Amino acid sequence: MFLLLITCLIDVCDIPYMFYISEYYQAFAAFVCCNMTLAAAAAALCAYIAPAAAGSGIPEVKAYLNGVDAHSILAPSTLFVKIFGSIFGVAAGFILGKEGPMVHSGACIASLLGQVGSRKYHLTWKCLRFYKNDRDRRDLITCGAAAGVAAAFRAPVGGVLFALEEAASWWRSALLWRAFFTTAVVAVLLRGFIQLCKGGKCGLFGEGGLIMFDVNSAKVSYSSGDLLAVISLGVIGGIFGSLYNFLVDKVLQTYRIINKSGPSSKILLAVAISFLTSCCSYGLPWLSHCIPCPRHLEDKCPTIGRSGNYKNFQCPPNHYNGLASLFFNTNDNAIRNLLSSSSDGEFRLSTLIVFFVTVYCLGIVTYGIAVPSGLFIPVILAGSSYGRVVGTLLGSHSDLDGGFFALLGAASFLGGTMRMTVSLCVILLELTNNLLMLPLMMLVLLISKSVADCFNKGVYDQIIKMKGLPYMEAHAEPYMRNLVASDVVSWPLISFSRVEKVGNILHELKTTAHNGFPVIDEPPFSNSADLCGLVLRSHLLVLLKRKNFTKQRVLIGSDVTSRFRAHDFGKAGLGKGIKLEDLDIQEEEMEMYLDLHPITNTSPYTVVETMSLAKAAIFFRALGLRHLLVVPKTPGRPPIVGILTRHDFMPEHILELFPQLNPHE
Amino acid sequence: MFLLLITCLIDVCDIPYMFYISEYYQAFAAFVCCNMTLAAAAAALCAYIAPAAAGSGIPEVKAYLNGVDAHSILAPSTLFVKIFGSIFGVAAGFILGKEGPMVHSGACIASLLGQVGSRKYHLTWKCLRFYKNDRDRRDLITCGAAAGVAAAFRAPVGGVLFALEEAASWWRSALLWRAFFTTAVVAVLLRGFIQLCKGGKCGLFGEGGLIMFDVNSAKVSYSSGDLLAVISLGVIGGIFGSLYNFLVDKVLQTYRIINKSGPSSKILLAVAISFLTSCCSYGLPWLSHCIPCPRHLEDKCPTIGRSGNYKNFQCPPNHYNGLASLFFNTNDNAIRNLLSSSSDGEFRLSTLIVFFVTVYCLGIVTYGIAVPSGLFIPVILAGSSYGRVVGTLLGSHSDLDGGFFALLGAASFLGGTMRMTVSLCVILLELTNNLLMLPLMMLVLLISKSVADCFNKGVYDQIIKMKGLPYMEAHAEPYMRNLVASDVVSWPLISFSRVEKVGNILHELKTTAHNGFPVIDEPPFSNSADLCGLVLRSHLLVLLKRKNFTKQRVLIGSDVTSRFRAHDFGKAGLGKGIKLEDLDIQEEEMEMYLDLHPITNTSPYTVVETMSLAKAAIFFRALGLRHLLVVPKTPGRPPIVGILTRHDFMPEHILELFPQLNPHE
Repeated sequence: MFLLLITCLIDVCDIPYMFYISEYYQAFAAFVCCNMTLAAAAAALCAYIAPAAAGSGIPEVKAYLNGVDAHSILAPSTLFVKIFGSIFGVAAGFILGKEGPMVHSGACIASLLGQVGSRKYHLTWKCLRFYKNDRDRRDLITCGAAAGVAAAFRAPVGGVLFALEEAASWWRSALLWRAFFTTAVVAVLLRGFIQLCKGGKCGLFGEGGLIMFDVNSAKVSYSSGDLLAVISLGVIGGIFGSLYNFLVDKVLQTYRIINKSGPSSKILLAVAISFLTSCCSYGLPWLSHCIPCPRHLEDKCPTIGRSGNYKNFQCPPNHYNGLASLFFNTNDNAIRNLLSSSSDGEFRLSTLIVFFVTVYCLGIVTYGIAVPSGLFIPVILAGSSYGRVVGTLLGSHSDLDGGFFALLGAASFLGGTMRMTVSLCVILLELTNNLLMLPLMMLVLLISKSVADCFNKGVYDQIIKMKGLPYMEAHAEPYMRNLVASDVVSWPLISFSRVEKVGNILHELKTTAHNGFPVIDEPPFSNSADLCGLVLRSHLLVLLKRKNFTKQRVLIGSDVTSRFRAHDFGKAGLGKGIKLEDLDIQEEEMEMYLDLHPITNTSPYTVVETMSLAKAAIFFRALGLRHLLVVPKTPGRPPIVGILTRHDFMPEHILELFPQLNPHE
Repeated sequence: MFLLLITCLIDVCDIPYMFYISEYYQAFAAFVCCNMTLAAAAAALCAYIAPAAAGSGIPEVKAYLNGVDAHSILAPSTLFVKIFGSIFGVAAGFILGKEGPMVHSGACIASLLGQVGSRKYHLTWKCLRFYKNDRDRRDLITCGAAAGVAAAFRAPVGGVLFALEEAASWWRSALLWRAFFTTAVVAVLLRGFIQLCKGGKCGLFGEGGLIMFDVNSAKVSYSSGDLLAVISLGVIGGIFGSLYNFLVDKVLQTYRIINKSGPSSKILLAVAISFLTSCCSYGLPWLSHCIPCPRHLEDKCPTIGRSGNYKNFQCPPNHYNGLASLFFNTNDNAIRNLLSSSSDGEFRLSTLIVFFVTVYCLGIVTYGIAVPSGLFIPVILAGSSYGRVVGTLLGSHSDLDGGFFALLGAASFLGGTMRMTVSLCVILLELTNNLLMLPLMMLVLLISKSVADCFNKGVYDQIIKMKGLPYMEAHAEPYMRNLVASDVVSWPLISFSRVEKVGNILHELKTTAHNGFPVIDEPPFSNSADLCGLVLRSHLLVLLKRKNFTKQRVLIGSDVTSRFRAHDFGKAGLGKGIKLEDLDIQEEEMEMYLDLHPITNTSPYTVVETMSLAKAAIFFRALGLRHLLVVPKTPGRPPIVGILTRHDFMPEHILELFPQLNPHE
């Protein structure tokens, strides 16, 4: 519900395009100032409150669902900045979308719900603390991401599929229908809100009804010649898509250096891009000729002082400016114009080419500034103008109309940048409501994805890699087949004895950042040195906090378990667990002992040291582990060889250890 | 493409409903004879050639994709019978669908492609033998199943989602887009065929175009009162759905006893049900009153001598018989009638109730006879008539029309019997092309699924259980938490020494049915008895067939590997590997030795004996294992405790070993 309010807010604020004053310079100044102020506000929020809120947020959510437990990704402050930054950003007229931020906001809200409030802001709910484990929290966040897409595109099924195909790393059938339930609720509420807001009561919210870009009326009939045209469109779209990814990556690397020099340079960069965008929006329409309004639309054309197509700009009465109709409009309206089949001939070829080139470039330079910015809308804008260009070029040679080509163009760009298939197909279907296009749309998506896959990775994967998030791929890299598990374990191995001295534990916790430690059963508690199990840092901290120490080196066992309840060891909210600094261990307690057995996982997952690293990686990933113990192949040696964690499987780590390996083999 | 030809064939044959002779008894005799002959033909094919082809086939495909490697499920003979049996069965006028058989046919075709032809029928293709492993074969069959749904419902996206949600047990993102590609090809070809067949050139094939039951024109507007009606419809639909499952289960158990007594009783049963169906179809319309044709449809009503609605049956001219329009029609046309919003008032309440009760009961008694029979169509028929009854009862109290209620009724029944959500939603969307219904459809599906889940399992799961297929659930049963891995391993454990006597190997292969054997490294080849690894029956047979024996107990190691290539050990086609009878071992060779090390998997997956059985089950299932070795916790004992296979995790096995456990705890 909250997500819907956000869409509503974003749509309501999306109206700084009403300047049709005859004094063009004054208008330009007002336009630029307004945009730059909004841009500065968005960037300031990001720079000072939550730097993690910049960008799309989908890569971060994807990494989180893969098991990367970074604190700031889903923090309440990130949510706050994401919502308001996105509103300001969209209102500032940037070429950016609200879809990625909506997914991120959905995930943040789900995360807050999963932690049942926020302890920092005194919003907690005790009876729901059973949610404190990784899996259920991840499930909830997957549902939140699905709800984000569902609310952003009004595409409930597309939302579920997006969460499944792009966001989630593990999937269970129970999760499928829970996500479906979430988006069903979003759909029903969304419909209710749109009903309530009928007749423009809530600004632009609800425009287009439940289907944002309805092109259902378009007739679809095509010959085999059209099929060929569509295939070429897919191939070229795929190339443009992968080029987009390549350029976004380069721009991001450049911006990273600028952004590193402090919050003020972040704001300056955002303001500069805002100025550039404003100049393009305001300056380029001057290049376009005035076109007389179509006869049958005289009451709708030109549009003055209200939202709609056929912008008058500097033209005489009853004329409109094609470029202004695209630039001087909300992104949603521009897309609607491009996809509409009734607007055939509304835009000249030169108009479309100028718009395509500008939007393509602006989209690339806009992503990466310190403002919440989605990638869907820029890519759809560029793609649909590209498709429309192709459609206009083919003209009467093809049975398909320009709007349909625009849709296919958008599909090809989306396929080329994001590399999704089923979910994009369903999202586009739900956006446009024309089922008869389905075969061609599937074809274009597959072709552009396959073509683009030859050049580079999907844009979200690229960003994850650039941000250095340790994302575990579902497959093992080929060179891993030539290594065994013991080749990559990190040194030195730190392990605890079953009954360990408090001082030792504290020392290891302080000097290392490890989150899991093997526990070894040693004489006199067993006949030989055996592997007892694995103990987690967070559990150790709980035990240390309660100070259940003994003076002698003895087992206390079940005595301890009776003093704790299961949820004492539940996973705390992000960044909220007991910290090392919270402990207050006295000097004399340092010499005392702690029996680790009650909190040891006595049957951790293990692999033998000679197992192929590729097999171990699949194992690690399929079961969603955080620690995998490596045990020796033959007895008579220490009972554990090492621990494998996510970082040990990262290509960078492995290739650093074995520089002679060829990563592309 | 082949699948499309099948749909085409089924549609062409689906025309035995053209008897409008005035001599009703003669007509009845002709109708019954025709139907019974076709039914007997279908049952004879099933009974004599491929008993595995009876029924829907989806449970079998689901079990296969879960790892149940039964030979007959995907054999070429099954495919043959499935295709022709399904054609005869649908033509015989049974209340059954072609969708399940299409999925099964798709899977069979994929399996044949995966084995690259059939060695039995001398259709092999050597260069593609790299496909000989479980995973790739499973992926191909998943794509085949998706293609089946795509062809049957003309729903390409629905097909992918069906394969994902219902059929497949493991899913990878690569598989997702491969399945998408498969169904995209199906969609493009399907559209081509429909274009070719325009104007009824191919009988009933292609009727309705790419969207089978287009109700796009229906207006969708509803109040909160309607929402309440829809929710109750979902609840009752869920109850009816689970009752359907319950009754199908009971009927199947009864039929099983009848079918066991031989092929002739199978045929007799099918003929008897055919007679019952014919009697209902022909007899019940006599109960219905004649209704005058609507004024504006005088050229279309009544239908005489051609396919269509408004059957005249025994009525005077310009009148039609409501029940005959439903019973004396193809199942597809009956569904189209029920879903159509333009046919409001065409059917009286009594007509709909009689039709609903009859179809509900006939659907239940028809499933289980020895004829390929899908469940989708009977459930959609019953559900849409139920929904139409509700719509007619509500009448003007609701803003929604009867056709829309029929669609929601169908959704509620499907949700109640099959328990899918996303895939059903998309399939129904692609069948009917009305995106505005989406929120309500999602709601109904979720409600009916949740209600029905309170009573029993989904119909496919029930059938899998009844057939005794060892299906591994993705979750562990609660009582497994109280057991450890070593509790359920089967006795006695049979293991081989690293260099083993040929006679011993042969003896164990003959006396047990195990497919995997642990190999133990023993002195003099190692210092102590260690676990060397796991060897597979199929690999042992390859080694035995080549007779690489040595007279002495020595290691030969790499000498052997050079004489084999990897694909010698590739998984053979279903039921085609080397069999024990193919070996020809002489008496003197029995005393010779075989070095098992070259074919041993030296890093098999292991768990310690004290691991919770629930954890081991999740491990087993997540990695898709066939064998899981259980190793002792402490050293100094034999290096292996036992092997866990799929059967050891089955509830029946565990509850037999530990009768005191409560399975519903």
